Amino acid sequence: MSSAALPGFRDFYPAELAERAHLMRAWGAVARRYGFVEYDGPPLEPLDLYTRKSGEEIVGQLYNFLDKGGREVALRPEMTPTFARMVGARANALRKPVRWFSTPQLFRYERQQKGRLREHFQLNVDIVGETDVLADAELLAVAIDVMRELGLTADDVRARVSDRRLLTALLGAIGVEEAQLPVVFAAVDKMEREPRESIAARLTAAGLSAATVDRLYVLVQGTDWIAVRAEYGAHAGVAEHVARLDRYLDALDAMGLREWVRIDLSIVRGLAYYTGIVFELFDARGEFRAICGGGRYDALLAALGPVDLPALGFGMGDVVLGELLRARGLMPQWEPALDWWVVAGEGVPVAAVLRAARALREQGFSAEYVLNAEKLTTQKTGAQLKTAQKAGARRALVLRDAMTAEVRAFRSDEPPREIRLDELHQLGAPHLA
Amino acid sequence: MSSAALPGFRDFYPAELAERAHLMRAWGAVARRYGFVEYDGPPLEPLDLYTRKSGEEIVGQLYNFLDKGGREVALRPEMTPTFARMVGARANALRKPVRWFSTPQLFRYERQQKGRLREHFQLNVDIVGETDVLADAELLAVAIDVMRELGLTADDVRARVSDRRLLTALLGAIGVEEAQLPVVFAAVDKMEREPRESIAARLTAAGLSAATVDRLYVLVQGTDWIAVRAEYGAHAGVAEHVARLDRYLDALDAMGLREWVRIDLSIVRGLAYYTGIVFELFDARGEFRAICGGGRYDALLAALGPVDLPALGFGMGDVVLGELLRARGLMPQWEPALDWWVVAGEGVPVAAVLRAARALREQGFSAEYVLNAEKLTTQKTGAQLKTAQKAGARRALVLRDAMTAEVRAFRSDEPPREIRLDELHQLGAPHLA
Repeated sequence: MSSAALPGFRDFYPAELAERAHLMRAWGAVARRYGFVEYDGPPLEPLDLYTRKSGEEIVGQLYNFLDKGGREVALRPEMTPTFARMVGARANALRKPVRWFSTPQLFRYERQQKGRLREHFQLNVDIVGETDVLADAELLAVAIDVMRELGLTADDVRARVSDRRLLTALLGAIGVEEAQLPVVFAAVDKMEREPRESIAARLTAAGLSAATVDRLYVLVQGTDWIAVRAEYGAHAGVAEHVARLDRYLDALDAMGLREWVRIDLSIVRGLAYYTGIVFELFDARGEFRAICGGGRYDALLAALGPVDLPALGFGMGDVVLGELLRARGLMPQWEPALDWWVVAGEGVPVAAVLRAARALREQGFSAEYVLNAEKLTTQKTGAQLKTAQKAGARRALVLRDAMTAEVRAFRSDEPPREIRLDELHQLGAPHLA
Repeated sequence: MSSAALPGFRDFYPAELAERAHLMRAWGAVARRYGFVEYDGPPLEPLDLYTRKSGEEIVGQLYNFLDKGGREVALRPEMTPTFARMVGARANALRKPVRWFSTPQLFRYERQQKGRLREHFQLNVDIVGETDVLADAELLAVAIDVMRELGLTADDVRARVSDRRLLTALLGAIGVEEAQLPVVFAAVDKMEREPRESIAARLTAAGLSAATVDRLYVLVQGTDWIAVRAEYGAHAGVAEHVARLDRYLDALDAMGLREWVRIDLSIVRGLAYYTGIVFELFDARGEFRAICGGGRYDALLAALGPVDLPALGFGMGDVVLGELLRARGLMPQWEPALDWWVVAGEGVPVAAVLRAARALREQGFSAEYVLNAEKLTTQKTGAQLKTAQKAGARRALVLRDAMTAEVRAFRSDEPPREIRLDELHQLGAPHLA
């Protein structure tokens, strides 16, 4: 038998599952707090759902195949096309703005690099039907509050924000012509990874003057928002975009999240996709890839389907986020845990143990006992207590006879106490015990 | 764009997602109460993981393909092979008995029948490393307690239990020879769906006497456990199996679950797979397919991998269970729900609304407001309250100015009351509000 998962796929043993569940819980709790409701779609979709959005070249990265009915299908590499399909199919009936979230597992056949995964889980949060910048601020607030929910602070994580419309206007103001925009956007996207000389050479070749290249670098590298506002805040064609981003920052300030945010015009993201404010979350030390990315994609729903509605959203994967939490000591360590272990004292029958376990479980406690009648009735109390401790039990209920038991706590200095078995149903809810 | 999911695949809009979440919550809560811990594996696995267990003929029912690395892969049609692989890889390090559960989505390319799905979610609960019948009783108890957790009673659902070893011994006692066993088991499996005449003809052709066929029908159809015990309880070769099943029933009795259980020797399940006690859960009116099935498979781990450990488990899908709950009026109806809607009274600035929403969310409440600055500051209070009600808000916080607000409840006759905004952070946790 194959003794391993496919390369790039993860087995989630209980300890890893617990880490995933920790992220999932935070994702769901924060999204719900902002009024988002959960949805999901199929992990297998028609292939054209993805080629329609991303072109044929995406097929090289997909798990795609012909199913037994002759349909071209693919494992979902992202959630947005499914989201667009589902919203499109019921657009008229849905309350606007639509506020939905999902936590799908996604699949990409990436050429295997060391440690690179071919599946991950991703929080998707989207808003449909609102053009105002308050929606953009709300969206970023969700992403940042997930960080806070997981124990990260503004010292750990930075939100870098740009606006496609503002950058386009600024480029016009510094003398970039419309025909040069694609080259300049591509250059901006590479500024962090490529030396200035080679980028400048390409820009000059495209017709930009040396002075314009200088001004571009001042604008984009380590953007100084105060300086940009001072210089362009009243500039015709730029002013409205500066004002919009100011309203965005004011909203995040009112939400107490301003300190997490930097305006950074070097953030580009997918050119064919985003139409307005875009953002990425990074760890402040720059050790990891982006934690999260998203923005406004007002044209996509109309391009993909029957409805023309403005939209914005982000995706946040479990892999980089998990690495960051572990690196910062914020990932809870999984340990076996159990509320109760029921121990059969000498001469106590199996049925008494089962009744006691049931009484505990009925109240919502987790409970175990030795799952073998012979061992249960012959093992010494000490041996059973050792098993209980190994299982991570917080307390043992040591049955003395059919009527009474002793409660022993393992992880506190709570003294042993007697309890009558007919009082077991009054122990109360687990969180009070 | 494809405007629909693939045939046999479901879109989970918020209402359907909420139903799925209702089942998932019950599954996890009950499994944890019995000390089971959650795991998961990849939804895509090497094809041979399935053919090794089920033979080449399973390939016809799989979503299988060649991946871009030339590997034969398949979407998982069941969880047991992944479970066996994972347990096998760490068998020595795991505390025994292993008690694990999972809630995977599974995929089968079934020839499309009306309403027949090609994916479903399935609770898998398994125990590894214990041969005693107490483990069998514990396993069935988990399945029954899921029913109870969802509001079903012993009047709604019946657990039908058989034991491969007992039936084999009984067949010997009534004169079936070992070579005839396969034919007889196959006949037993069909008794519910095929007329007695045609089955009897096959059995007679296989060499069974008419008297043996009669005795077989008495044993298997509407099994009378009291009569079986009286007749075979002391029969050499049968007695030990009767005694074991009695201990099983006694254990379920001590757990308060005896009334759910019927011994029914017509339950066969997969012949190549199960080795001991097997069970299925059915709705008592017989309107639906089986809710759940499982049993002991002591030989499977050794057949599939490096470890030889006894094991038992069950699978419970979300589809039949959901149908049953809806038919019995036990599936909660999803409605949009929100703790708070923040309303901007006349002249109240956007920032005050954002601060109030944040204060509510910080305490764990869900909160929304009109996500458009112009509408938020110009819409009348009445219009915003209407939006709040449509969103399912329980309460509105109507800001009067930067200092005070009025609390209005929508779903109770709680009178409107004033609140100072600097007291918002003292509202307390949602479940106390």
